[in-house]
Amino acid sequence: MTGTLYVVGTGPGSAKQMTPETAEAVAAAQEFYGYFPYLDRLNLRPDQIRVASDNREELDRAQVALTRAAAGVKVCMVSGGDPGVFAMAAAVCEAIDKGPAEWKSVELVITPGVTAMLAVAARIGAPLGHDFCAISLSDNLKPWEVITRRLRLAAEAGFVIALYNPISKARPWQLGEAFELLRSVLPASVPVIFGRAAGRPDERIAVMPLGEADANRADMATCVIIGSPETRIVERDGQPDLVYTPRFYAGASQ
Amino acid sequence: MTGTLYVVGTGPGSAKQMTPETAEAVAAAQEFYGYFPYLDRLNLRPDQIRVASDNREELDRAQVALTRAAAGVKVCMVSGGDPGVFAMAAAVCEAIDKGPAEWKSVELVITPGVTAMLAVAARIGAPLGHDFCAISLSDNLKPWEVITRRLRLAAEAGFVIALYNPISKARPWQLGEAFELLRSVLPASVPVIFGRAAGRPDERIAVMPLGEADANRADMATCVIIGSPETRIVERDGQPDLVYTPRFYAGASQ
Repeated sequence: MTGTLYVVGTGPGSAKQMTPETAEAVAAAQEFYGYFPYLDRLNLRPDQIRVASDNREELDRAQVALTRAAAGVKVCMVSGGDPGVFAMAAAVCEAIDKGPAEWKSVELVITPGVTAMLAVAARIGAPLGHDFCAISLSDNLKPWEVITRRLRLAAEAGFVIALYNPISKARPWQLGEAFELLRSVLPASVPVIFGRAAGRPDERIAVMPLGEADANRADMATCVIIGSPETRIVERDGQPDLVYTPRFYAGASQ
Repeated sequence: MTGTLYVVGTGPGSAKQMTPETAEAVAAAQEFYGYFPYLDRLNLRPDQIRVASDNREELDRAQVALTRAAAGVKVCMVSGGDPGVFAMAAAVCEAIDKGPAEWKSVELVITPGVTAMLAVAARIGAPLGHDFCAISLSDNLKPWEVITRRLRLAAEAGFVIALYNPISKARPWQLGEAFELLRSVLPASVPVIFGRAAGRPDERIAVMPLGEADANRADMATCVIIGSPETRIVERDGQPDLVYTPRFYAGASQ
């Protein structure tokens, strides 16, 4: 007998931004695996089992969850945001790819969610209204020179750039160096958005020009969005400023 | 007196993938503007007014909605997917930017949603599990040479590439030319995902290698995801194949 592995995304944190599809998967599952702050977002019943873990153990966690699902349990793997964006869906696929044959017959149900950059963008206007890219700044997962090469090519291409995992205690200098590199390619006036905990009670959204962007404004819960040369700021009376990237390309980056 | 303009994303189409936050905004609004298939996704009450329009009139539509909101009406602008990704939030911001002063004092509430590439990715595995970009292939909005330059730089950077607006009756050749260009940069074995109507009854997801990718497989409702050289296919007994991009960069693209 084989069970089911649900891989769900809670969205940015507010229950109002979690889809009904994810809520249904959570209601159907028996055991829950994930980084503990994401599990804390769910209102689990007393009969549902919670196995919280630290942030760094994605592949181990996926293997344990697959073992349980292969044994017939309905298991739920929980990510914040969307499970497919720098989160658990890739770790689960990798575990299936490299694991024992029986993991390949586990029913896998992945439910998408609102990923951080979309939640941050919605709070400030439409910075992702034109072509954009998403880069994880963690050099635990790829060499730093690959990251800097991608940042440079993305800026040269005119993409708006969303940075995930911008900073942590173990990686304190990477975001500052990324800003430094981007200042050599992009105008100093390009808006940078620090979007922390979008949609949650402790939300904090700040905008500043790239020339003044200070990496200390970011923490682990921050998604940093760097505009393109086309990105504009709209000042409004009695309302917060808007930041948007026009749908039409006017050629400002040429 | 000024009203409110809600700019909402319905998600990919299934009601189960629309957030409660968006459903609340829909319940609160009095008048609805948007491309008619997106309005069709909402169960509006008899007292709610529906102003459906064609696909091409984004800025006009935004201006009408802002005029009504400035007059005190609770207005809802409806996009499919996420309103901030190649959708109405940027058009609304642009209208506010260039419009009369009173539009700047309209309360603007943007609710994020599950955008197409996330919904497609969830149905097939985790192709967006590593760095990626999103490009609109519409050359109504930018010159074709800007698009080809971005495709080339994105492929050289090692991004997985999600293509929005890949094809239409008025733009029949662009996707084929994009594949041709990418075949000159990427290995022919790179998986290409044609994700049509993800999460809806008429969903159709197909995977083929870039070397055999046929633009005729796409239509207006398709999001095309082109893997990186790191993207892998996992065959499973009795289950559909998975496509994922590993979290760790192994250097296949070097």
